[in-house]
Amino acid sequence: MRLSRYFLPVLKENPSEAQIVSHRYMLRAGMIKQQAAGIYSWLPLGFKVLKRIEQIVHEEQIRAGHIPLLMPTLQPADLWRESGRYDDYGEEMLRITDRHKRDMLYGPTNEEMITDIFRSHVSSYKDLPLTLYHIQWKFRDEIRPRFGVMRGREFLMKDGYNFDLDYESAIHAYNRHMVSYLRTYERMGLQAIPMRAASGPIGGDNTHEFLVLASTGESEVFYDAAITDLKFGDRVVNYDDRAECEAIVKEWTAPYARTDETHDEAVFGQIPEERRRSSRGIEVGQIFYFGTKYSEPMGANVVTADGSRVPVHMGSHGIGVSRLLGAIIEASHDDKGIIWPEGVTPFHAGIVNLKQGDSSTDLACEALYRDLSARGLEPLYDDRDERAGAKFATMDLIGLPWRITVGPRGISAGKVELTNRRTGESEEMSSGAAVDRLAQIYAGI
Amino acid sequence: MRLSRYFLPVLKENPSEAQIVSHRYMLRAGMIKQQAAGIYSWLPLGFKVLKRIEQIVHEEQIRAGHIPLLMPTLQPADLWRESGRYDDYGEEMLRITDRHKRDMLYGPTNEEMITDIFRSHVSSYKDLPLTLYHIQWKFRDEIRPRFGVMRGREFLMKDGYNFDLDYESAIHAYNRHMVSYLRTYERMGLQAIPMRAASGPIGGDNTHEFLVLASTGESEVFYDAAITDLKFGDRVVNYDDRAECEAIVKEWTAPYARTDETHDEAVFGQIPEERRRSSRGIEVGQIFYFGTKYSEPMGANVVTADGSRVPVHMGSHGIGVSRLLGAIIEASHDDKGIIWPEGVTPFHAGIVNLKQGDSSTDLACEALYRDLSARGLEPLYDDRDERAGAKFATMDLIGLPWRITVGPRGISAGKVELTNRRTGESEEMSSGAAVDRLAQIYAGI
Repeated sequence: MRLSRYFLPVLKENPSEAQIVSHRYMLRAGMIKQQAAGIYSWLPLGFKVLKRIEQIVHEEQIRAGHIPLLMPTLQPADLWRESGRYDDYGEEMLRITDRHKRDMLYGPTNEEMITDIFRSHVSSYKDLPLTLYHIQWKFRDEIRPRFGVMRGREFLMKDGYNFDLDYESAIHAYNRHMVSYLRTYERMGLQAIPMRAASGPIGGDNTHEFLVLASTGESEVFYDAAITDLKFGDRVVNYDDRAECEAIVKEWTAPYARTDETHDEAVFGQIPEERRRSSRGIEVGQIFYFGTKYSEPMGANVVTADGSRVPVHMGSHGIGVSRLLGAIIEASHDDKGIIWPEGVTPFHAGIVNLKQGDSSTDLACEALYRDLSARGLEPLYDDRDERAGAKFATMDLIGLPWRITVGPRGISAGKVELTNRRTGESEEMSSGAAVDRLAQIYAGI
Repeated sequence: MRLSRYFLPVLKENPSEAQIVSHRYMLRAGMIKQQAAGIYSWLPLGFKVLKRIEQIVHEEQIRAGHIPLLMPTLQPADLWRESGRYDDYGEEMLRITDRHKRDMLYGPTNEEMITDIFRSHVSSYKDLPLTLYHIQWKFRDEIRPRFGVMRGREFLMKDGYNFDLDYESAIHAYNRHMVSYLRTYERMGLQAIPMRAASGPIGGDNTHEFLVLASTGESEVFYDAAITDLKFGDRVVNYDDRAECEAIVKEWTAPYARTDETHDEAVFGQIPEERRRSSRGIEVGQIFYFGTKYSEPMGANVVTADGSRVPVHMGSHGIGVSRLLGAIIEASHDDKGIIWPEGVTPFHAGIVNLKQGDSSTDLACEALYRDLSARGLEPLYDDRDERAGAKFATMDLIGLPWRITVGPRGISAGKVELTNRRTGESEEMSSGAAVDRLAQIYAGI
């Protein structure tokens, strides 16, 4: 993309309404625009990151054998009356009346609807196990929306639901989700720690939250420092293998890690003192096993091999897709702006032309643009007639992990400069070498 | 995907509520499930086609130089009060009150919001031309939703908006959209004819609708048969070239083609009688130029080169993404089921194992599955323990354009059967030849 043809409305001033760094940088980098309290437009740069995150979530869910579908944003109230949650949910549920005076709601979650889909179409144990998920906009009418997309009202979430014949199979689904989530977050450059959690309005005893450590997190968390040394890495997982998934879950749940809701001082005290940590954390996902809480009242039963009818065991598993943008920025920024991990960056590299209109730099930039594109990379070329300082400031603010700087002096020596956004380190090399280096870096992402 | 692990709830019976073939087949093929009047869940097969269509729309918009973003589903009523449409819109607008008693609405379209984004961030002619678009769920509270996704209440639409300094530039944007739409529909295997239309509540004199000829269409259309001979083909278009885009628009608008709203018997009568046609048509898109209708009342102005402030010229351009599934099926089916065009098929080919459990056919099917996947194709392998007739019926119903049939007799002779869904023609060949053939077919898509 050429910046002269893009829509990147960066702000020079810090917006006064933004209290935390991710909100501030998302506004300043022209990623979002507030349209109403807690409701945002995703401007082109923000939309691009949102799509990258969504794509990683899709890929990892499909890798785990889960099947995508899409439920609508609006739901009939009657479904929620069946589960008993229509009256329980309170004012955070946005209730709507249509022109025929029917009670509707903007879905805050989808346990009822997915159970309805299941019971309408599945009646035999032979069709189990089954895990369905979707990535869809949801609404919670927060009384005080704040922190930008971290606590918005209209938000994008992945929610998945497993249907299993028995407890053991459902626990395998739970474990499979934990494994796939560990992999998902790591691909986004995030360390998200699974912590034993309280269940809240979804129900169920078996539940973990995934928390990203950040000083602006809404939860207080307590953990054994050993857990931050764990890496998922490039291990290949057979998601059908119960023992393999269980072993990975054990690895990540053995060290103490809890939110304030489940924190136990006595157990925490048994950790060697030098490894005890407390911090703040941002919740970016949660997994639940809740058994037959929805299948029983809603009649989601299957006939077993011996001919009896039993309610299916279920769980639900969420990832806060839009919220992740905020969490990633909270975890990865400096005083100049965002620092995108390679896995989610909106563009793979920026190209800064130090002397727009100079035929040697213009040609070199165009060649770089073409060569990077030919390698499957998407560069953002700042081809505006601006001074170098303004171009650098924009690139630093929007946080592309790599920048190639092209100036007349370098070009006359056959060199461009490749700069790492995180470390600030620069290296001179030929254009071809810079393209090769970037292709190599992103090949592993 | 292996069918034994997929969620494809096909129905044997014709659902009584479905009046038209696309609705009937989408229900029977397990593509959608109604959750409330005019509100559908997209089951896995339907979701897959929806994503393919969405992807084609994105690719062609980006090719035309248009920039994607994403506006929220809910909008504040105040924006619509500025344009005057809040009171005009009537009962089709779903009006919502949030917990703080603020008036909101579920967006039926986005002229107001995109104008708000523009005026907040753009103030100079130097940032023009600009075309922004999104693909987002919308809601129209139809009094009698029907025909499945063809006339639903919650529907997915691509809507794009151009901002230009003057009339000529805005007309180029209009032409660019028409060209990109012609290409978009043709990639989906559809012939969608641009017809001069009436403007309706969006406003503006310059407008064309794109109609797919089908007996179940909601509009009566009149056209010169010459237009159905036009093909976009694989021509390469420079979307910046005004003359080139204009020439293509002229080519497609020269033959008479109008809906009943703009039909003129006198002009129609001048067409040679043997080329006069009347038919029904399904609207799958519409483009508008409406000048300063929104920019003036909402203050979307730019400063020109000579320092004056002028309202920008705008247009809006829509494609009915979810509705397209219905339109494609209406245009492409037979009495056994759907016939997907290669461009939008949910799976590239079906593999039918005639004797599940036979080691020779099982091995051959697994090898085919692996080889097709290695060529970037996505097969659907019917690995269920079902009789051949049921497997064929399912494949015919869900409409994959190609089927590979693997039976013990063929395998002993080193052959499989490749069948074209549309023609019904089958050809025996080696597995390797079938894979090569399919790779070749899809390479051109």
